[in-house]
Amino acid sequence: MSLAIISPGRNPKVWIDALAAIDPNLEIQVYPDISSPEKVEMALLWQHPPGYLSTFPNLKLISSLGAGVDHILSDPAVPESLPIVRIVDEKLTWSMTNYVVMGVLNFHRQITRYQADQKRKVWDMSNPEIPVKVGVMGVGALGGDVLDKLNYMGFEVCGFGFSEKKSFSYSYFSKDQLAEFLKNINVLVCLLPLTPETEGILNKDLFALCNPGTYLINVARGKHLIEEDLIPALESGQLAGAMLDVYRTEPLPENHPFWEESRICLTPHIASVTNPKAAAPQIVENFKRLKNNSTLLNLVNRQKGY
Amino acid sequence: MSLAIISPGRNPKVWIDALAAIDPNLEIQVYPDISSPEKVEMALLWQHPPGYLSTFPNLKLISSLGAGVDHILSDPAVPESLPIVRIVDEKLTWSMTNYVVMGVLNFHRQITRYQADQKRKVWDMSNPEIPVKVGVMGVGALGGDVLDKLNYMGFEVCGFGFSEKKSFSYSYFSKDQLAEFLKNINVLVCLLPLTPETEGILNKDLFALCNPGTYLINVARGKHLIEEDLIPALESGQLAGAMLDVYRTEPLPENHPFWEESRICLTPHIASVTNPKAAAPQIVENFKRLKNNSTLLNLVNRQKGY
Repeated sequence: MSLAIISPGRNPKVWIDALAAIDPNLEIQVYPDISSPEKVEMALLWQHPPGYLSTFPNLKLISSLGAGVDHILSDPAVPESLPIVRIVDEKLTWSMTNYVVMGVLNFHRQITRYQADQKRKVWDMSNPEIPVKVGVMGVGALGGDVLDKLNYMGFEVCGFGFSEKKSFSYSYFSKDQLAEFLKNINVLVCLLPLTPETEGILNKDLFALCNPGTYLINVARGKHLIEEDLIPALESGQLAGAMLDVYRTEPLPENHPFWEESRICLTPHIASVTNPKAAAPQIVENFKRLKNNSTLLNLVNRQKGY
Repeated sequence: MSLAIISPGRNPKVWIDALAAIDPNLEIQVYPDISSPEKVEMALLWQHPPGYLSTFPNLKLISSLGAGVDHILSDPAVPESLPIVRIVDEKLTWSMTNYVVMGVLNFHRQITRYQADQKRKVWDMSNPEIPVKVGVMGVGALGGDVLDKLNYMGFEVCGFGFSEKKSFSYSYFSKDQLAEFLKNINVLVCLLPLTPETEGILNKDLFALCNPGTYLINVARGKHLIEEDLIPALESGQLAGAMLDVYRTEPLPENHPFWEESRICLTPHIASVTNPKAAAPQIVENFKRLKNNSTLLNLVNRQKGY
């Protein structure tokens, strides 16, 4: 009975070390060198080759190597009967929130304006703050933490999600209230899970509903954004700028127009990186629970997509 | 009985409007057009011409137009018998904290690295976070709020001040423990009041006690920093960078080397700008208390210098 790590293009060593540190007797096979596929009962996946799981006749459990599972659910060859678990990591939440708060503050306090002024040796003290109201799309563990931290810091915040909520600590808008949500804010943070319902949600129709000069922060998935719609929205002034961490194609292709757009601040999918040391205990625990046939941690609801 | 606004080089209109909105019957005279100096009993000062207060034979109270009073205490011609009050404004604290948190996050998450990578179209996901421990010099209303917010966000923080403290919510170092304080941190925030004891405290001797790669944020006063010592500390790597909002001479002279130093992020004294609307009620209230001979709000202790 062994574990398989299938994470093409990334160095698996940090994962092997973190798992072995907890249980040195684990049998770990690593893609593409899987010598005994029949032994694999649990597969740890990050952007596996579609269809590849059919290699494992005795597979019983799939674990994402991150918080998202869209890379698993998008493969129609993944058997519907297999349970899927994901990583829930406080450190991941912490990093994500810090990134978003940084984006909000840099817009509110106009860091790019002052950087440009410094280059031109301009001393301009006028209007040092852009008033902001922050709306967070997706109010799970990640979005909820962003709302808590910004609220504690004294910012006006509200949330948006696809389900109805009877009680919520902040103003909340559900899917029929998207226009109202957007009218309330001028900083839009996307932390939605990627599902068929949310794919492409950041598009020209949504931007048209925003207050002019809204700032966009996308830290969820590249496929939430219709990338062709972003630069026109910046050019019309409907959006004031954007901070992006995720893209349709990663790494972002060299000829992609985002690289050279000064109103976009881009980072290479580092807003929140799963820490193998923090995540390994959950993986080993789920492997144990699989053997003992007990309730799995962080089980994904396939209907909801997270 | 009238108020005088003495704030050369700044537009006094926002102050006049804010004061008149509270009490339209106030007699307000504005420097340099003071026609009846003998009527002035309260002077509102921001960088007044030294010696100028001798113009007012009946002056009874001085108010700073900001949180700091160093610009008043540094004028030996200010009579020792006159009480001095200052502005205490929650909005001022809020802005200051947001600025400092922005500086901490931009260092922690390496915003300048990612900006440089974007320019060169480089996709580098390695080591996305610099671990930080933040030390705040000056733990009054401003420093205390910075500590609270960063602590809530999950950062390790500690404070430094000139007085002993029997109880404090965070690790605290007093003046004999400067070296120990600096060994504990790699982000140094200066929020000290400017006094003879604190002037020039950010100098090469202090930088030599820092952990290599420490990041400096100075949002207090330009005179806290020996400016000639900063660039050598950046060049040696003792300091990794600096975010500065205040300078010995403001506006920063065009030939000052800070403008062109890429490791310095500079802003034009906008970290926290007193909001006349928020401050005017305190001024009018103190004017009333002066007339009624009752206890003044936010009275400055001249020995302490704040």
